[in-house]
Amino acid sequence: MHSHPPNHEHIDDQMIKMEVNLDNIPGEWLGYVMDLLFEAGANDVFYTPIYMKKNRPAILLQLLCSLENVPKMKEILFKETTTLGVRYYPLTVHRLERVFTQADTEWGPITVKEGILNGQVVQRSPEYEECKSIAQHHDVPLKKVYEQVWKALDNKK
Amino acid sequence: MHSHPPNHEHIDDQMIKMEVNLDNIPGEWLGYVMDLLFEAGANDVFYTPIYMKKNRPAILLQLLCSLENVPKMKEILFKETTTLGVRYYPLTVHRLERVFTQADTEWGPITVKEGILNGQVVQRSPEYEECKSIAQHHDVPLKKVYEQVWKALDNKK
Amino acid sequence: MHSHPPNHEHIDDQMIKMEVNLDNIPGEWLGYVMDLLFEAGANDVFYTPIYMKKNRPAILLQLLCSLENVPKMKEILFKETTTLGVRYYPLTVHRLERVFTQADTEWGPITVKEGILNGQVVQRSPEYEECKSIAQHHDVPLKKVYEQVWKALDNKK
Amino acid sequence: MHSHPPNHEHIDDQMIKMEVNLDNIPGEWLGYVMDLLFEAGANDVFYTPIYMKKNRPAILLQLLCSLENVPKMKEILFKETTTLGVRYYPLTVHRLERVFTQADTEWGPITVKEGILNGQVVQRSPEYEECKSIAQHHDVPLKKVYEQVWKALDNKK
Amino acid sequence: MHSHPPNHEHIDDQMIKMEVNLDNIPGEWLGYVMDLLFEAGANDVFYTPIYMKKNRPAILLQLLCSLENVPKMKEILFKETTTLGVRYYPLTVHRLERVFTQADTEWGPITVKEGILNGQVVQRSPEYEECKSIAQHHDVPLKKVYEQVWKALDNKK
Amino acid sequence: MHSHPPNHEHIDDQMIKMEVNLDNIPGEWLGYVMDLLFEAGANDVFYTPIYMKKNRPAILLQLLCSLENVPKMKEILFKETTTLGVRYYPLTVHRLERVFTQADTEWGPITVKEGILNGQVVQRSPEYEECKSIAQHHDVPLKKVYEQVWKALDNKK
Repeated sequence: MHSHPPNHEHIDDQMIKMEVNLDNIPGEWLGYVMDLLFEAGANDVFYTPIYMKKNRPAILLQLLCSLENVPKMKEILFKETTTLGVRYYPLTVHRLERVFTQADTEWGPITVKEGILNGQVVQRSPEYEECKSIAQHHDVPLKKVYEQVWKALDNKK
Repeated sequence: MHSHPPNHEHIDDQMIKMEVNLDNIPGEWLGYVMDLLFEAGANDVFYTPIYMKKNRPAILLQLLCSLENVPKMKEILFKETTTLGVRYYPLTVHRLERVFTQADTEWGPITVKEGILNGQVVQRSPEYEECKSIAQHHDVPLKKVYEQVWKALDNKK
Repeated sequence: MHSHPPNHEHIDDQMIKMEVNLDNIPGEWLGYVMDLLFEAGANDVFYTPIYMKKNRPAILLQLLCSLENVPKMKEILFKETTTLGVRYYPLTVHRLERVFTQADTEWGPITVKEGILNGQVVQRSPEYEECKSIAQHHDVPLKKVYEQVWKALDNKK
Repeated sequence: MHSHPPNHEHIDDQMIKMEVNLDNIPGEWLGYVMDLLFEAGANDVFYTPIYMKKNRPAILLQLLCSLENVPKMKEILFKETTTLGVRYYPLTVHRLERVFTQADTEWGPITVKEGILNGQVVQRSPEYEECKSIAQHHDVPLKKVYEQVWKALDNKK
Repeated sequence: MHSHPPNHEHIDDQMIKMEVNLDNIPGEWLGYVMDLLFEAGANDVFYTPIYMKKNRPAILLQLLCSLENVPKMKEILFKETTTLGVRYYPLTVHRLERVFTQADTEWGPITVKEGILNGQVVQRSPEYEECKSIAQHHDVPLKKVYEQVWKALDNKK
Repeated sequence: MHSHPPNHEHIDDQMIKMEVNLDNIPGEWLGYVMDLLFEAGANDVFYTPIYMKKNRPAILLQLLCSLENVPKMKEILFKETTTLGVRYYPLTVHRLERVFTQADTEWGPITVKEGILNGQVVQRSPEYEECKSIAQHHDVPLKKVYEQVWKALDNKK
C-alpha cells in the first residue's frame, strides 16, 4: 500500500531519505526492486549513476518514505539487493494543496491535478495514465492528448 | 556563422559527428568551448558523463557539423581542449520541413516553429527565447507563457 | 512486432543506430515512447543523460533497428517526441548462437539462454521474466531464485 | 542578490539543501530556473540525472541556500517548475578564508582567488570571467590564458 | 588506515556524509583523490556527474566517514581538490552482521562474505579480489569463477 | 600489448568503435573488464550510464581499437561480459604529432607530452604517473606538482 500524505498544503517533517550504493548487482534486478519498494509504501524511489572505487560504474539507490515505513524499506533493501548497509537521514517536505479537476478533450475528460500555494494554482498536471490510455485506445500521439488538455484548461487561473 | 540546413523536408547525408574524450580539463573551460563551437557553425554540441581508466570521471564531447566545417571544429578542439586526437564519422540526418507561425498571448505574439512530415504538422515548438523574454519582462512564470501559447494554438492541426 | 535475428552465430551488417537529442520533452513521455519503439520492432532503445546549450539537462535517445524498420522508427520519433531531425548511421553486429536450456529449481524449471561462440558456451542468462514471476508467486527474493538457477547449472560447460 | 558568506575561514551551520525530482518538465525550462534561483540568492544550484519509475529519465534539482532564503527558493520552485513538493534538510559548510590577489599576464592583470586553511594558501583559482574576457578580446585559447596565470604565480606559497 | 565498523548487526548514528561540487578540476586528479580519501579512513567515496551553471559539466564528490575522521577528510579535500568549501551532515547507518565463510572451487577456496539480518543470511558476496586473482592466475573468465562459487554455496541457507 | 599509433600528425581511418549495452552484469566486474581490454590493445575504453527497458539502470561500454584488434576485443567482451551481441562501426581519427619534453621541478624533472598541430604546440600535458609518484614520495598535493610544472614550462610556445 502507498502512504498517502494529506491533500492540504502542509510541512511534513517526518520524512526519511534512505540511500544505498550498489556496485555488485545486475541492473535488471533493480527495476524489480523499485517496484517492490513502491508497493511497500515508498513515496519515491530513484536511481543515480555513480562511479565507485576500482573503476566500478555503480548505482545510488535513493528512496523517500515516512518514518513508520523505514523497517519495511530496510527489509526489502537487505533481502533484494546486495548491500550490507543502509544509510538514512530525516528531511522536511513542503507539499502543496492538491485539487483534482477535469479537462474535456475530443476523446473524453482527463483528470488534471492542481497544486495550490497560498490559495493560488501554481501547478496543473494532467494524469499521465489517463493521457496514455487515450493515446493508446485512439491511436493518437501522446503529445496531442496533452495539447488538447492544455487547450481545454482555463488560463485565467 | 551557423550552417543553415534548408527549411524543406530533406535527407542530409553530408553530416559528421565528432567525438573527444576529456579527462584532464576543468569543467569550467567546457562551457566556453561549447560557445566557440556553436559560433563556428556546429549544428549541435553536447556533453555526456563517462568513466575512464584510473577512476577518472570524464566527459565525452560530441558535436554535429557539416562536412565543410570539420576543419574549423578540429582547430577549436585541438586549441581549446586538452585532447591529442579527434575522432569522427559520417551520419545521415532526416529533417522535417520547418514553418514559422504565431501564437497570440496577452503579452503579445510568440513565434512557434512547426515541423512538417509529409505535409502534416507533427511538431509545434514555441521559441524559447521569446517566451523567456516575455516571462522576464512581465514577471510571470515561464510555464504560464507556454500554457498561453498552447491555448492559442489551433488543435485541429 | 519485433524483428528476430537468427539464432545461429552470425555477423549482421544491416543494422542502423538512430539518435535524437531531446531538451524540450518531459521525461514522463519518454517511458511511453520507449514502449512504442519496442512494439514497432526496435532491437534496443536506451536513454543517456546529456547536457546541451543554455544549461539544459537533456536526453539522448538511441535505438538499434534493422534497415527495413527505419521508416517506422522515424515516424514514431517525429510524431511522439519533439525533435525536428533524426540522425542515423549503419553498424555491424556480431551475434552469438543462442540456445535455450532449463535449470530446475525447487519452484520449477527456469529457462536459461545460452550464448555460444565457436561452439563453446560463453554466456548463460536465466530468463528474467520467469525468475521474476517465481519470486512474486513464491514470495522469495529474486536473487535467491537466481542463486538456485546458478546452483542447478552444469559448471563443466 | 546573492547571499555573501564572510571571507574569513568559518563553519556555517545555517545552510539548507533543497531537492526536487523532476520528470515532467522540459529541459529547456531548467536552464532558466537555474538563473532565477541564483538571482534570488542561491549559493549553488546543480542538476543530476536520475531514473524514475515507468522508465522516466528525470532530473534531480539540488540547491544550497541560507536559512533566510528558503521561502524565496520554495516560491520559485513551486511557480517555475512542475513539482508538488520540495524537500530540504540542514547541513554544515566549512569555508576557507578567501583572499584576492593578482597575476600579471601579457594581456594585463587577472584576479586570482586564494583559499586559506589555517593561514596556509591551499587554493588558487584564476577568475574565470576575467580569463574568458581576455581570451575573447585577444583571440587566444582560454587555456593559454590560464597557463600564463600559473606562470605568473609565486610557487613558494 | 580504514575505520572498521563492528561485525555484528548494529545501528551507527555517528556517520557523516561530506559533499563537494567540483567544476574546475581535471578528472585525472580525482582518481588520485579517491585513493587518498580511502587511505585516510573514508568508509566510501563516490562521484556523481552533475551540471552546474555556465554549461559546466562537473562532479559531485561524496564520501562517508566516521565523526572522528572529519578533520582528516577536510584536510585532503582542501589540499588536493580545488574547492573553497566542504559541506556535510550526519546520517544513520544500519549494518548487517558480517560473517566470513568459504566456497571451494576447482582453483581453491574463495572467501564469501555473508550478511546476516536477525540471524538469517540475506547476503552472500564472494570476495572480489580473490576471484580476480584466480581469474588472472588460471586465465579463466571472472564470471566463471563467480559461477563456481555460487555452485559451491549451500542454497538451503 | 598496446597498439601504438605513430607520433607524427596523421589521419587514421582504420579505427573501430565497439559498443555493448550491459544491464545484467555487476559493476564490480566491469573494472576488471576494462583492464583486460586495455591489456589486449584497446586504444581507449569508457563507460556511459544509460537507462534501458523495464527501469534498468545499465552501462554502455564503448571501446576504440584498430581493425586488427577487433577479434581480440570481441573475444574478451563475449567471455568476460554478459552480452550476446557486439556492435561496431568504423571511424576516422586525426592525431596530433606527439613530442616529449621535460619540466624541472624542485622534486626533479617531469615528462610533458606536447601535441603539435601544423608545427605549432597546442597541447602540453604533464605525465600523470610521474606527477602522482612525486606527490606520493614527497608527500605534497598533486596539484602543487602540476603547478610547478606549469611554472617551469616556457610560455613563449
